Amino acid sequence: MSKIDRVAANRATFERLCDAEPVFVDLGPAIEHLPGMSRETILTSGPALPFAEYEGGQRDAIIGAAQFEGLATDREEAVAKLEAGELRVGGCHDCNAVGSLAGVYTASMPVFAVRNETGGNLGFCNFYEGTNPRRLNYGVYDEGVKERLLYVQDVVAPVIAEAVRRAGGIRLKPLMQRALHMGDELHSRNTAAALLFLREIALDVIDMAGEDSAAVKQAIEALTADHYFFLRLSMAAAKATADAAHGIEGSSVVTAMGFSCREFAIRVSGLGDRWFTGPHAEVQAKLFEGHDESEITWMGGESPIVETIGLGGFAQAAAFALQRYQGGSAEAMVERNLELYEITVGENTHYHIPYLGYRGSPTGIDVFRVLDTGVLPAMDIGVAGRDGGQIGAGIVRAPRECFERAAEAWRTRYGAP
Amino acid sequence: MSKIDRVAANRATFERLCDAEPVFVDLGPAIEHLPGMSRETILTSGPALPFAEYEGGQRDAIIGAAQFEGLATDREEAVAKLEAGELRVGGCHDCNAVGSLAGVYTASMPVFAVRNETGGNLGFCNFYEGTNPRRLNYGVYDEGVKERLLYVQDVVAPVIAEAVRRAGGIRLKPLMQRALHMGDELHSRNTAAALLFLREIALDVIDMAGEDSAAVKQAIEALTADHYFFLRLSMAAAKATADAAHGIEGSSVVTAMGFSCREFAIRVSGLGDRWFTGPHAEVQAKLFEGHDESEITWMGGESPIVETIGLGGFAQAAAFALQRYQGGSAEAMVERNLELYEITVGENTHYHIPYLGYRGSPTGIDVFRVLDTGVLPAMDIGVAGRDGGQIGAGIVRAPRECFERAAEAWRTRYGAP
Repeated sequence: MSKIDRVAANRATFERLCDAEPVFVDLGPAIEHLPGMSRETILTSGPALPFAEYEGGQRDAIIGAAQFEGLATDREEAVAKLEAGELRVGGCHDCNAVGSLAGVYTASMPVFAVRNETGGNLGFCNFYEGTNPRRLNYGVYDEGVKERLLYVQDVVAPVIAEAVRRAGGIRLKPLMQRALHMGDELHSRNTAAALLFLREIALDVIDMAGEDSAAVKQAIEALTADHYFFLRLSMAAAKATADAAHGIEGSSVVTAMGFSCREFAIRVSGLGDRWFTGPHAEVQAKLFEGHDESEITWMGGESPIVETIGLGGFAQAAAFALQRYQGGSAEAMVERNLELYEITVGENTHYHIPYLGYRGSPTGIDVFRVLDTGVLPAMDIGVAGRDGGQIGAGIVRAPRECFERAAEAWRTRYGAP
Repeated sequence: MSKIDRVAANRATFERLCDAEPVFVDLGPAIEHLPGMSRETILTSGPALPFAEYEGGQRDAIIGAAQFEGLATDREEAVAKLEAGELRVGGCHDCNAVGSLAGVYTASMPVFAVRNETGGNLGFCNFYEGTNPRRLNYGVYDEGVKERLLYVQDVVAPVIAEAVRRAGGIRLKPLMQRALHMGDELHSRNTAAALLFLREIALDVIDMAGEDSAAVKQAIEALTADHYFFLRLSMAAAKATADAAHGIEGSSVVTAMGFSCREFAIRVSGLGDRWFTGPHAEVQAKLFEGHDESEITWMGGESPIVETIGLGGFAQAAAFALQRYQGGSAEAMVERNLELYEITVGENTHYHIPYLGYRGSPTGIDVFRVLDTGVLPAMDIGVAGRDGGQIGAGIVRAPRECFERAAEAWRTRYGAP
């Protein structure tokens, strides 16, 4: 038997997940915020791979990102420089960041900086590109995508940056807690959270309107345009939360889940920075009109960081309105949500689900419980199409193989659990 | 048998309830908007009674309203003038308005004017006084209450009036539909609706901020302070909706529910302006700390107009977060909501409940179905205390007697149903 008290370690991990206090403290270019970022780096989702191994939309996103950043004048030059190693591809997680879908970051892109006041660590996420389904993070790059990225960077981000500075930081946890009472699960639905955020900055932006009311109005429109603006803040908050729970000796609790075009992967609190990988699972998706299942493709995604801390798929019974967007029924959502209590350490002490009598959301995925019960973590995700762009949304399960490999590593390091 | 096709009449009533298109078109003093309003009139909730019959908080509210309006310099003078008939007490409904709790209106109070674009008729409601539990509409009048009423009138209302004018009217139905997907039932919970409303006026108030940013900020704070600001818009929208369905020959569908300190009362579409009354029922309440059931008192209320159109208690399964506020469980909320389909004509074609697979809310209460099934309409209400002020919230049922009297009148007028 292991000399490590795994139960106590998992409990401690769970407590860190619950006690984190994410505060949106700053917003600025990735190069100024992300540790290890450089002008020649492009970050992307999932365990970092050699450039040659990226395929499809994720490869296209990396190439597009290089062009967007002005690191190459065209696609061919970008590919040549990436192949030659003149441009470096890195994993978002290694820079304390998380990427949505392909998740590409370049040096100039604005990032949300969220500080966990409890642990002092920072988590980052870059911006939502807007409602157009053609987006760089969905593997598309063209003049329209570039224009929209520059709009976010030059118009929207500065307003929000100024607002957060005037506010002296914005505590995200109260907004996220409240959003769960208003139909969000903070992954595929962030509608209430965006409005709560708007209210939070409203008084400051009123003061700012004297200087540039057009920009202020454009920023308000961007942040309330649909369900996804706040997701990036929810992701940064989740990253800051999960990282605070990482590195606890003996813990078998998952502290990151994400994927690249090639593989799904998890990290475990007590097992260092190693990724435990497995194949992509099937997604139960509802596709936008005009698309079919043959188009579904994997091009990366680290938004499951929110499930890692007990939100998203783990709080589905808070967001019945998601049915229309990603399919399924309320009954299935409740059943799936309840099942996830079987694989988690405890019930979140801060994030509550009204439908379940304000029960705390299932939080802290234990690798061994996943294997014992056969219940795989469920995640709400956006679905990418082969030709780029978002084509729908749905639910995906993490593959069992990740947990088998993690359990094996745990045994090797600590003995029988 | 009646020669009237009651089923067809009820169907027509139901369709009017569904098809109404409430638009918030204006905001100004009651005297300028309410038909039949005068400087010497005080409107209050429920079928109008002689002044001497009002008791407790409702009587206090009427007296306080007279003082607030400057119609009397003190309580004694107000009572004398009311008793002498120099000041007139009227029912809100008779002026196309609805009152919250005691529901007092005086000439100078700002009212929301909501126009039903489908039928062209108008519905009105006055303002929420703010978060302090001591409010005129809860039977309290003192210097603090007066100050808060003047604040609403002089600071908050003008900003919102200007915003609605700039917007050229604000369609409320899309906001209300969306709020149902965000945890509101639009009676005891209007949190999302208030934020959606804020978003709706945000761009206009940014433009207005140049002129008086302090007032704009105070208005934003008032409208997002708690769950009740938007209720008054929801009530005005419901009144405009219900009135459009009133007066259909042969219809046995309820078009108003409300109460005074003395009695509960309903109106029926095919039975003119007569009120059918019954005794107060018991309320299943959750009281604020420091209060007990012996304090619960009736001082009027016409907010059940929202239940009349298929919201509030009729859409409880959209608002599980209400559990904390008014007690009960999610299961009970669902069960109660489902039961109400037994007494209604149909499923609302515009207001949907995500948890019930986006089923339309039960809409159009049929007097005969209530009697046949024994299921009484359920309403979410604020609970008033004997000494004035709000002391909690809960669920109340309309009394069977109202429906018996209405059925009797229907038979007298139209024959056997």
